[in-house]
Amino acid sequence: VDVSGLHVLIDPGRVPSRRLGAFLPAIAQAGARVVQIRIKEGSTRSALAYAQEAVQYARRAGLVVVVDDRVDWALAVGADGVHVGQDDMPVALVRRIAPGLLVGASAGTPAELTAALADGPDYIGVGPVFPTSSKADAGDPLGIDGLRSLLRLAAPVPVVAIGGITPANAAAVWAVGVAGIAVIAAVAEAADPAAAVRALLAAKPTP
Amino acid sequence: VDVSGLHVLIDPGRVPSRRLGAFLPAIAQAGARVVQIRIKEGSTRSALAYAQEAVQYARRAGLVVVVDDRVDWALAVGADGVHVGQDDMPVALVRRIAPGLLVGASAGTPAELTAALADGPDYIGVGPVFPTSSKADAGDPLGIDGLRSLLRLAAPVPVVAIGGITPANAAAVWAVGVAGIAVIAAVAEAADPAAAVRALLAAKPTP
Repeated sequence: VDVSGLHVLIDPGRVPSRRLGAFLPAIAQAGARVVQIRIKEGSTRSALAYAQEAVQYARRAGLVVVVDDRVDWALAVGADGVHVGQDDMPVALVRRIAPGLLVGASAGTPAELTAALADGPDYIGVGPVFPTSSKADAGDPLGIDGLRSLLRLAAPVPVVAIGGITPANAAAVWAVGVAGIAVIAAVAEAADPAAAVRALLAAKPTP
Repeated sequence: VDVSGLHVLIDPGRVPSRRLGAFLPAIAQAGARVVQIRIKEGSTRSALAYAQEAVQYARRAGLVVVVDDRVDWALAVGADGVHVGQDDMPVALVRRIAPGLLVGASAGTPAELTAALADGPDYIGVGPVFPTSSKADAGDPLGIDGLRSLLRLAAPVPVVAIGGITPANAAAVWAVGVAGIAVIAAVAEAADPAAAVRALLAAKPTP
């Protein structure tokens, strides 16, 4: 599964279930590659209902589906993968209980990156690149230089940059050579999500 | 796997990890059958560390291990089963992603019980029998008569009664004919957990 390109994170707060049927085809057609379902509130029952609906629309739209943190939800809704942070299940354990899932890990420092790489994830989410208000426990921003150092350490594992990335600053992030960019607010809170996806992708330098 | 008998619920707040090595053999030797790990706070990483340690001691002591709610944790630590409440993953989905696990479901009303039974759980946790302060979102107490009605509806699926059960009121609960009793405070908060287990089991009428 190719996880390069644009990852769009969604949750029931920013993209309510009634909007999924318009939102997911629109971002897919605009060029998004991966949708990550990240639910931190509410019951498992309501999260599963949301994720199951999202997976149906995402499949039809050709999007890769990743579930944040919850390996059981990823398995239950038939997602392609799971993304685990520093406090979530270690990648090696995810592999053991869910050998078919794509596994992404998170890192925000060289030490975290080294630890994450030892487990052999399929990709690494690196960030926050810029200040972000979408994730309360995000660490200090790396900046473009910090991102570049971590990208070198991560090679050849694909890096997906995350944290405060917008159409206005995306060109500098792509220019570092990341495999992908992940966004929360820039697309899920945009008045025109498809236009935001196009702008984030248009910022990528042509090779 | 036999789930009749006494279920003891533990969590890192009531039985910290440093106490597991004494607590679990003690309750096993006193006659407890099942330990249920129920963690509602903290990170997945810390919950997994606790559950992994509990599983090791429980195995050595011959206790059946059930994990509350989290199917991924149950799989990751090699538990025998998972217990799912009304807001957790439906039993049918648990069966699909974790066919080897024993699955318990919860019910507190006839409607919940009928819905839970339709999914074919291995046992049903019925409660709260009495008022409880250990579970914030527990419903109204069933009382002994309410428990008796639900037990009849559940047959032949084994019923494990839960909620406010103590050595002082356990005889009335056993007398209804439940397969098991589950306790939180009565053992995990007891000064002498083994003595509490013996008292809860001694309350069972000899057949």
